[in-house]
Amino acid sequence: MDFSALMTSAGINIGLCALFLSLYSILRKQPTNVYVYFGRRIAQDHNRETECFTLDRLLPSPSWIFKAWENTESDILQCGGLDSVVFLRFLVFSIRIFSIAAIVCLFGVLPANYFGRDMLHKRIPFESLEVFTIANVIEGSRWLWVHCLALYIITFSSCVLLYHEYKSISRLRLAYIRNSPHNLSHFTVLLRSIPNSGVEMAGDTIRNFFGNYHGSSYLSHQLIYRTGKVQKLMSSAEKVYRKFVQLKLASCGLNTRQKLYRCGLCGGDKSIPFHFQRNEEDLDEKITDITTADIFQEQEGCLAAFVFFKTRYAAAIVSQLMQSPNPTLWVTDQAPEPRDVYWSNLSISYKCLWFRRVLMLIISVVFMFVFLLPVTFVQSLTQLTQMKKMFPFFRDILKMPMVTKVVTGYLPSVILLLFFYTVPPVMMLLSTVEGSISRSDRKKSACHKILYFTIWNVFFVNVLSGSLLTQLNAMTRPNDLATQLAEAVPKQATFFITYVLTGWVGLCSEIMQIFALIYTFVRRYICQLDDDPQLVPTFPYHTEIPKVLLYSLLGFTCSILAPLILPFLLVYFCLGYVVYRNQILNVYVCKYEMGGKLWPVVHNTTVFSLVLTQIIAIGVFGLKSSKFSSGFTIPLVIGTLLFNEYCRQRFYYVFTSLSVQDLIEMDREDEISGRMEYIHEELLSGYYKFFPAKDSNKSDICNVDDGATTATESNQFSSIFS
Amino acid sequence: MDFSALMTSAGINIGLCALFLSLYSILRKQPTNVYVYFGRRIAQDHNRETECFTLDRLLPSPSWIFKAWENTESDILQCGGLDSVVFLRFLVFSIRIFSIAAIVCLFGVLPANYFGRDMLHKRIPFESLEVFTIANVIEGSRWLWVHCLALYIITFSSCVLLYHEYKSISRLRLAYIRNSPHNLSHFTVLLRSIPNSGVEMAGDTIRNFFGNYHGSSYLSHQLIYRTGKVQKLMSSAEKVYRKFVQLKLASCGLNTRQKLYRCGLCGGDKSIPFHFQRNEEDLDEKITDITTADIFQEQEGCLAAFVFFKTRYAAAIVSQLMQSPNPTLWVTDQAPEPRDVYWSNLSISYKCLWFRRVLMLIISVVFMFVFLLPVTFVQSLTQLTQMKKMFPFFRDILKMPMVTKVVTGYLPSVILLLFFYTVPPVMMLLSTVEGSISRSDRKKSACHKILYFTIWNVFFVNVLSGSLLTQLNAMTRPNDLATQLAEAVPKQATFFITYVLTGWVGLCSEIMQIFALIYTFVRRYICQLDDDPQLVPTFPYHTEIPKVLLYSLLGFTCSILAPLILPFLLVYFCLGYVVYRNQILNVYVCKYEMGGKLWPVVHNTTVFSLVLTQIIAIGVFGLKSSKFSSGFTIPLVIGTLLFNEYCRQRFYYVFTSLSVQDLIEMDREDEISGRMEYIHEELLSGYYKFFPAKDSNKSDICNVDDGATTATESNQFSSIFS
Repeated sequence: MDFSALMTSAGINIGLCALFLSLYSILRKQPTNVYVYFGRRIAQDHNRETECFTLDRLLPSPSWIFKAWENTESDILQCGGLDSVVFLRFLVFSIRIFSIAAIVCLFGVLPANYFGRDMLHKRIPFESLEVFTIANVIEGSRWLWVHCLALYIITFSSCVLLYHEYKSISRLRLAYIRNSPHNLSHFTVLLRSIPNSGVEMAGDTIRNFFGNYHGSSYLSHQLIYRTGKVQKLMSSAEKVYRKFVQLKLASCGLNTRQKLYRCGLCGGDKSIPFHFQRNEEDLDEKITDITTADIFQEQEGCLAAFVFFKTRYAAAIVSQLMQSPNPTLWVTDQAPEPRDVYWSNLSISYKCLWFRRVLMLIISVVFMFVFLLPVTFVQSLTQLTQMKKMFPFFRDILKMPMVTKVVTGYLPSVILLLFFYTVPPVMMLLSTVEGSISRSDRKKSACHKILYFTIWNVFFVNVLSGSLLTQLNAMTRPNDLATQLAEAVPKQATFFITYVLTGWVGLCSEIMQIFALIYTFVRRYICQLDDDPQLVPTFPYHTEIPKVLLYSLLGFTCSILAPLILPFLLVYFCLGYVVYRNQILNVYVCKYEMGGKLWPVVHNTTVFSLVLTQIIAIGVFGLKSSKFSSGFTIPLVIGTLLFNEYCRQRFYYVFTSLSVQDLIEMDREDEISGRMEYIHEELLSGYYKFFPAKDSNKSDICNVDDGATTATESNQFSSIFS
Repeated sequence: MDFSALMTSAGINIGLCALFLSLYSILRKQPTNVYVYFGRRIAQDHNRETECFTLDRLLPSPSWIFKAWENTESDILQCGGLDSVVFLRFLVFSIRIFSIAAIVCLFGVLPANYFGRDMLHKRIPFESLEVFTIANVIEGSRWLWVHCLALYIITFSSCVLLYHEYKSISRLRLAYIRNSPHNLSHFTVLLRSIPNSGVEMAGDTIRNFFGNYHGSSYLSHQLIYRTGKVQKLMSSAEKVYRKFVQLKLASCGLNTRQKLYRCGLCGGDKSIPFHFQRNEEDLDEKITDITTADIFQEQEGCLAAFVFFKTRYAAAIVSQLMQSPNPTLWVTDQAPEPRDVYWSNLSISYKCLWFRRVLMLIISVVFMFVFLLPVTFVQSLTQLTQMKKMFPFFRDILKMPMVTKVVTGYLPSVILLLFFYTVPPVMMLLSTVEGSISRSDRKKSACHKILYFTIWNVFFVNVLSGSLLTQLNAMTRPNDLATQLAEAVPKQATFFITYVLTGWVGLCSEIMQIFALIYTFVRRYICQLDDDPQLVPTFPYHTEIPKVLLYSLLGFTCSILAPLILPFLLVYFCLGYVVYRNQILNVYVCKYEMGGKLWPVVHNTTVFSLVLTQIIAIGVFGLKSSKFSSGFTIPLVIGTLLFNEYCRQRFYYVFTSLSVQDLIEMDREDEISGRMEYIHEELLSGYYKFFPAKDSNKSDICNVDDGATTATESNQFSSIFS
């Protein structure tokens, strides 16, 4: 591939992006797409100023970029929670570090590569891209110290930036905890593996135990049962009730088909009585529910309980200390927030939890390694000769040169792409079966799995291209791996640059929300169903964070080997920053929070990328027989690992547990302000699956009044389109 | 090597053992050796019945074996603590499992090996040992299922026995905790990284912090200072005081030279005033001491503090919860027992602790891998031609065939042995520098290091014999490792059998205490120093546990490959059981306890041995092209790993933390019995380095009254010799 071809490819991608973004800026102004592009606003914000209808609804405009830009971090924090701030901070970190890397590498390393050997250079557009990589530097060149110095600069700046981000995000997390006085999970302990005494009821057993050992702080408890007959009766009753409410709404003329076509003047009455609606995400769960101990007293079915305490400090003590001399009895954990609880997993017996975890780990690893086998099999089916055999009637069409090009050139990548789309649901499923007790844990676990999967199947498999066995062999020979990577990465640099270019288009399709557009269209016009604020998605951190981390890995590893990648990567991160900011502000709703717990994942992966870069650099310097640079890079690896260990010691525990100082001070503040009694009352009703939580304004989405929303709908739209 | 040669070797070793044991049974009856062979009894037990002098003091007798045998487990528990029980249990476990393995393998696997190929067998004494190993089985033999079945039986019995031992030792540990009501460490928290407020004294800072957040349970604290000028003054004063006491004793006619020659009728007065004596183990430490906050109020020097609480529960809460939002401030840990504290390490700043740990880890790994380099270098110097060059004047002597044999045959192994003797002190030093805060932690850490070292340098290096690079290559290619091991282990089986035979002699030299005998002789007759009860050693778990674990590893890995090793190994374990029982009862003193924390190490290593055996078996079955057996072994590996994970879930936490239930119940018992106030008083004086602890009868060794002991000495001797 020569330079001009790369530029052509970049041009095509820029064109596609411009097209997509223009399309987006028009589509977002259409009222029919409001649930696609402003889902969060519809679901969460209720007070917005109205604005008149203008004609430039049909003209593309970049106003959304400014809108996304002008919001402050505190706006983001309010809209998307701490996790979205962490995500955007990661993008800012990437922009910063790759700006530094771009300056250093384009002005230092690139000339060193270009003039790396005595040769007659063509004019730049006709130059092969390999001339810009380290492959062009001759063996034993004296200029390799430039690469080593660049590596030092990149590593040092990364470490400084990472340290400051970790510090600042730790502070944000502490502030987040201090500013969530109504977080019921701080007062609640999830109790599992309750011993079966044989004579006592589970409720009495719990009451006796906690009354005996934590008498002064124990408040109450709430049993969680496995599905029983009564449960099934309850859920049938619920269904009947829901149908009744729907009928009632329909008879009032408030059926939702009409919503979108009304002008906003004939809105429904705001005083329509509150009606119960289950969170839609719960519907796909198996029916496993909780009830109070007073309703069902069946010992066998009781697998877990929420135990409530008078203070946060007491709950922290109970959740962190081993309760019984038998570590598999009276197992306590901090409970997730009510809206974050993953109810169906609470019914998993604690005893088989470890087995599930081990099994899912094995399955994920196997999935990671054998994923490409079916892909290559299906790809082999799409070879022309195979196709001709299987579809004899298409033989003539397949002979056309254009079709041949499409089939051989694009079909394999389309198949790969389609298979890749199956990864997030599969990993999410594995994380569910693993037994995560909260939605956020499940997402974090899936994020980890997808991260390893992506790095292995995009980076390593491309670099160590070959059969599964060759890859496994490379894995089991870490000694040779460094040399193999050093040989392969510069060769694959061109591919990685084009991969970054497809990343641009990926961002544009993210902002376009093509799937959501199609889904809404099908739902509305084919299934004749109403738009539902409950269907507004949460931010897919588990797919987006691995994606951005992969680009960052590509950036680090290619930086000194093929610095041409850096400007393209910078464009990716800048575009990503605007796009994701916009999405967080407008599209995705924040139903539950991870409290910034994703930052350690980001930090560790970035350190991994740095160390991998350094190891590849050592390999490359070895191949170029530059002992000087090779030797100087080794202390860098050790230094980076020590830095990581220091950060772990200094910050990691902030993300795993709450400090006594904070807990006691929050308790005292609540006691002085008299809020404590109110919280205690809330606790007793907070963890009911059937009834929506009342604790935060975000959970209002559960009992949003459809009629009322409809009434002011058309007024709201105009304000957010512009 | 043929069978008769093995029997000859066994005969020689049996002869040596018989000689050593007879010598021991005579030497132990001599009064001059009482400090060598009955150190623990002299130091700890004070009430023993007297017995008359008999003439059979000069005749060897096996009575000590019966004496060692007749003691019950509770006697052992009283003499050597829980750790010695754990150690003996491990020996019993080994005897049990290798009895099963011996029965299965000698009657099942051995015939299958012997008749493994069609060949003319010689008479058994002239048969090569290889005929008894799996190497004699032809490829694709149908009899390999016997080996697979044997492996299944061994694995299953091991798992069942391991589970029961883990369960029973967990129970013992819980009982040990419940039966140590005076354990001051349960009430104490070691506080490190105290923030420097700049205005307040360290003592005030601590008092304010704990008064504020743990006001109801905080009792007091005690600062630990870095060595300062005042400290030096104190230690000088101490030296002067000790000299004064010695002079005083000498002037009373109680100087210890006379002790051993007195008849016991002219004993000293029991009412000689108490005099302070430092624990001898402390003498080799740098002078770093503690004082109360009232004496020295220097903020800079204060690096740590012991904080005392009113109840065990409160102390557990403080030690397990994160105190400050900054995890590197107010770092709390459960304090070690007073007699277990490793004072000089308390002065290490918490901030550089993690760095020390990482550094020591790197050094231990490097030491493990490069250990054999100097050994082979020195061994190369002892080659005949080298020797002749270096010592031309010995040329004639070196030409003698007997000398040649000794130089070429024994010198290399003597050099290896001498180098091996340096390992425990080096590892102990590394564990000290690492920063362990207690002696028991230091020993446990050294035990881990020596374990890895031994397994690598004895098992793997012998099997993968070759240069360091070949070994490293083998390590970095786990794929090939299995095949390499499968090829090499049966070949090395003969060596391992002879290694087990040297183990017998090792046990005999352990019971003989040759070093201690020589040391006491030199000390008494050359240095003219007195025997000192303070010099009685503690049990060297850190060297003995890795040794026994290595033999157990050899037993497992060779069991189905070369079953001839098993009878020899059984003899080793039985002899070891009697010898170590005797040593625990008579020789070693129990100055501090690990509370059975070594069992998880033993358990994990045994599981590792099992898995390694299975992996080698898969390799061997692969080489013998028996897909059936190979395939059937894979689920065994997975099953064993799952079993290990289950045991970890079920039992491991019992060894790392105390349960709320136990803590609260112990507190309540003490409060009801009124013992609590007494404990609180003791706490305030318990953690003084200068003054001996008073909490247990075992620590009496610190303030043992030399004169009083001398008085009844000769009476006691006669009773324990027989």
